[in-house]
Amino acid sequence: MKLTILGCHSATPRENKHTTSQLLEVKGNLFLIDCGEGTQMQLRKSKIKFSRVQHIFISHLHGDHFYGLIGLISTFRLLGRTAPLTVYGPKGIKEIITLQLKLAKSWTDYELHFIELEDDEAVSIYEDENISVSTLPLDHRVYTNGFLFTTKSSVRKIDSEAINDLELKPFHFAQLQEGKDISLEDGKTFTNSQLTLPPDVPKRYAFCSDTAYNEALVQRIKGVDVLYHESTFLEQHKELAIKTKHSTAKEAATIASKAGVKQLILGHYSNRYSDKNEFIEEASPIFENVILSEDLKSYSI
Amino acid sequence: MKLTILGCHSATPRENKHTTSQLLEVKGNLFLIDCGEGTQMQLRKSKIKFSRVQHIFISHLHGDHFYGLIGLISTFRLLGRTAPLTVYGPKGIKEIITLQLKLAKSWTDYELHFIELEDDEAVSIYEDENISVSTLPLDHRVYTNGFLFTTKSSVRKIDSEAINDLELKPFHFAQLQEGKDISLEDGKTFTNSQLTLPPDVPKRYAFCSDTAYNEALVQRIKGVDVLYHESTFLEQHKELAIKTKHSTAKEAATIASKAGVKQLILGHYSNRYSDKNEFIEEASPIFENVILSEDLKSYSI
Repeated sequence: MKLTILGCHSATPRENKHTTSQLLEVKGNLFLIDCGEGTQMQLRKSKIKFSRVQHIFISHLHGDHFYGLIGLISTFRLLGRTAPLTVYGPKGIKEIITLQLKLAKSWTDYELHFIELEDDEAVSIYEDENISVSTLPLDHRVYTNGFLFTTKSSVRKIDSEAINDLELKPFHFAQLQEGKDISLEDGKTFTNSQLTLPPDVPKRYAFCSDTAYNEALVQRIKGVDVLYHESTFLEQHKELAIKTKHSTAKEAATIASKAGVKQLILGHYSNRYSDKNEFIEEASPIFENVILSEDLKSYSI
Repeated sequence: MKLTILGCHSATPRENKHTTSQLLEVKGNLFLIDCGEGTQMQLRKSKIKFSRVQHIFISHLHGDHFYGLIGLISTFRLLGRTAPLTVYGPKGIKEIITLQLKLAKSWTDYELHFIELEDDEAVSIYEDENISVSTLPLDHRVYTNGFLFTTKSSVRKIDSEAINDLELKPFHFAQLQEGKDISLEDGKTFTNSQLTLPPDVPKRYAFCSDTAYNEALVQRIKGVDVLYHESTFLEQHKELAIKTKHSTAKEAATIASKAGVKQLILGHYSNRYSDKNEFIEEASPIFENVILSEDLKSYSI
């Protein structure tokens, strides 16, 4: 998986501070997570061919997470899109988008589907041959979900050393990847496990924004490879975090530590902080492998 | 009047090409015309104190003219705005904005008024001591208005040469500006016209985007100081202009010429043209005093 941060700031977009949006690439497929105002310009800046996005996941209906969605949907139409697009988000999102398309007399020429979310429990919302996506219920001022992306690895890997001296045909490779034993032309037979290695361990990415400190998350994101957890505030403004149902950097680190994740990425910074290193200084004593998200920066998972 | 172009491109915003929005300053009051996606970022770049905007005029409900409105309204709330804000635009605009504020549970703390427009004739929609605003019905794929801004100049100007040797008190100046005659302490009297000059000639700015070639405009914008007229296309793509109900640079110049305006500003360029000088080359043989709008450039009227 490759994660590209398009925007990691909260509340209001500024000249060089974009509100929440992320692009997750999994085996060539692009998944967009949240879509703040100006996301389509950030996508252009990223140089990623964003017409390939077929699934958009919206955490909640605050502007800094979805005001760019209608513009992106319209731009796909103007660029001649034909591939279907599915939007996953809180109930109400379909009405907001379709009302604007109706009044503009600008229905899309491509299929536009909405999967509206209402569950308070984690539910599976998407699955294909490479990945599954489920919700992570969060605790915010409006109905909000994070999203857990889990890759699948059903294909065994050919052990290049073990097959070094064998004359394999293409269909042998296919049989091995499917877990089958093989017979060569000279009559020799090999069990699958003699020539292959187990599939890659699935990778897991958890996106958690926006939320108050929420220990219910810990079980659901146990041991994920990367956790993006919002840290809108520092502890010095904890009363604001409580009032607005956001988290501090310390709280994000505490969740990461309790869940035993491999890496924590902080983001959704309040505009009041000019020095982002303070977030690392606050989080790292509790959880060491922590980094800052930055607009237009990519991360391997 | 001072006009600042925030965006002058059509259809889809790009990295350095912003969709339609303009700021008109009249004696310290700011009027926003259209509000494409990312307008609030352009306002920040312009360094204009945009919290002073109290009236927003939206020409039509295509995204490149209003997708930034909900974000700007939300940002005003987050910045602690208390002054009322009035939005003038096509019927439906109130439902679009209020639906989003409702679902976000984020009603503004300031008064937000909507004046929804449905008339097919030119109507007066705003007036204060300095300016009046009326609609300019345009011919586009959806209900669309341009806007005509006309300054008022009811205050006579003191003739500094004529008062040079007189000992005037502050109340004398007020009387003169109100058009009254004055009596000095030494008994001398002066008629108003002896000491003042006529008020400034009113200035007029006409904003016309988006529209097909529309001769009905000519009478309504006769002799305006500045006409902003869309020129989405060049004549080489006239069939596209007809199909999408837009204008070519030649057509914009023809309207300017027939209306005898003082200056024409072109804009709303299609993204297909890399050399904007072609618009000037096409328009100037028909109307000489023509210039190109540019994002973040200001013009005196």
